[in-house]
Amino acid sequence: MSKHVWTARPDRILRAGEGFRLDAVDAGATPGFAGDKAVARKQLAVRSQLLGDLQERLYAGSRTGEATDAVLLVLQAMDTAGKGGIVRHVVGGVDPQGIELAAFKAPTEEELKHDFLWRIENRLPAPGFIGVFDRSHYEDVLIARVHGLADGREIERRYDAIEAFERRLTESGTRIVKVMLHISRDEQKERLMERLDRPDKHWKYSPGDVDERLRWDDYMAAYQAALERTSTPDAPWHVVPSDHKWYARLVVQELLIAALEDIDSQWPQADFDVAAERKRLVAS
Amino acid sequence: MSKHVWTARPDRILRAGEGFRLDAVDAGATPGFAGDKAVARKQLAVRSQLLGDLQERLYAGSRTGEATDAVLLVLQAMDTAGKGGIVRHVVGGVDPQGIELAAFKAPTEEELKHDFLWRIENRLPAPGFIGVFDRSHYEDVLIARVHGLADGREIERRYDAIEAFERRLTESGTRIVKVMLHISRDEQKERLMERLDRPDKHWKYSPGDVDERLRWDDYMAAYQAALERTSTPDAPWHVVPSDHKWYARLVVQELLIAALEDIDSQWPQADFDVAAERKRLVAS
Repeated sequence: MSKHVWTARPDRILRAGEGFRLDAVDAGATPGFAGDKAVARKQLAVRSQLLGDLQERLYAGSRTGEATDAVLLVLQAMDTAGKGGIVRHVVGGVDPQGIELAAFKAPTEEELKHDFLWRIENRLPAPGFIGVFDRSHYEDVLIARVHGLADGREIERRYDAIEAFERRLTESGTRIVKVMLHISRDEQKERLMERLDRPDKHWKYSPGDVDERLRWDDYMAAYQAALERTSTPDAPWHVVPSDHKWYARLVVQELLIAALEDIDSQWPQADFDVAAERKRLVAS
Repeated sequence: MSKHVWTARPDRILRAGEGFRLDAVDAGATPGFAGDKAVARKQLAVRSQLLGDLQERLYAGSRTGEATDAVLLVLQAMDTAGKGGIVRHVVGGVDPQGIELAAFKAPTEEELKHDFLWRIENRLPAPGFIGVFDRSHYEDVLIARVHGLADGREIERRYDAIEAFERRLTESGTRIVKVMLHISRDEQKERLMERLDRPDKHWKYSPGDVDERLRWDDYMAAYQAALERTSTPDAPWHVVPSDHKWYARLVVQELLIAALEDIDSQWPQADFDVAAERKRLVAS
């Protein structure tokens, strides 16, 4: 935490706790951050160094077999909220060798034959790695609820299954950083319009985006329910105001830093005789 | 190509062609580059923008289903030559979402039951992606030859198999960029010594590194043979002098840029009615 730019720890003030109300969040605010966009840009670069250093310590343990901990960043958001920018500008600042990135699209036929957590399990980060989920098992209680792909009873079962699943993960050493990037309905309209206005952005647009947008209130209700049911002390949700992309990126960076500082990986000890190896090397 | 810093195209002058002799390469040279380390650092940042832009065009096609081409960067080198630095500082400059990174270690029991190209096939980049192989199928004609894990006849079979395999890949749209990072024996000694001197680098050291170093000449002979047998017009090898890390990074960046410029991806055309979507969006 750089105290001069933050007036409060984002991992605390953005946590969805008891009585959390999504409709009370101002997506255009920048809570806890004392600077502007220019300050944020510098801050992102400065903190990227620290994030990279912490990640290297974590990764080092994976090479020597000592690592027991991992980090899992779960990104959920309405379209255009900036998941891709987080991956590029925050995650992209650390060594790609230590990152396991999984983008979950509509499930395949094979995936649908299994329980909804099966494909998730297959993509969990190994000890020493930072896993990044671009969408996740939460789609199965969000889009599934909004489109009625599962009935209320099944959705309830899934909340419970997710809680048990995430408890197992945290107990076995994975820090789960759950992030909802929260944009306003107006901001989404502007961003979608930009994709329509620019031919080099057409590939990012799909008519389905407006279909989903028309269900905005249903999505917010589904998010509210999911946040209530699955924001646990060990795997809390963070709802990040994201109309300002620079703010959301800084926050997610700080959340990752906090998770890695909590793990507090130390450099692995040499399991060989350093002096003897030095002699062998000199003679080689 | 930025003409003011390069006096010759690195993809041309570093190509291992007819009559190539590895022992004639000066690992400490910086052929074709007119600047020093400081210039190189700036150049890397500037060209990273272009690399990222080209990669985004390639990736866009994967999202719309139009992409038919991919890039595969194959990195081979003696220990400490800088593969990791290439991944971090060159590949790390582009959007992680478009990268498929595979680090090949000693084969598992299951992998050994299959032909040596089986595990390679499984990790090939999909159209629209840049695949990066940190070590590769070439280990099966390098370490395998040096340690006698396969006899001469089997090694010959593998050269032919690799040539046929890579021809199939290039014919189906993959640009294969094969890079040997070439360091001198003295430089390797210095880099290994640094790993022994610094406790935060011990995890990167293994006593086996000196064992392999003692077979230096055998490795150079194995590389020479592999370069002769598998540097084809469609999938040529580039031997990159790598005692100066900054030079090697710039070169690999240029090789990737050249491959992407060769593909010359265009932004996908909208497959929807832009005006109609604009109306729908405004009304939403």
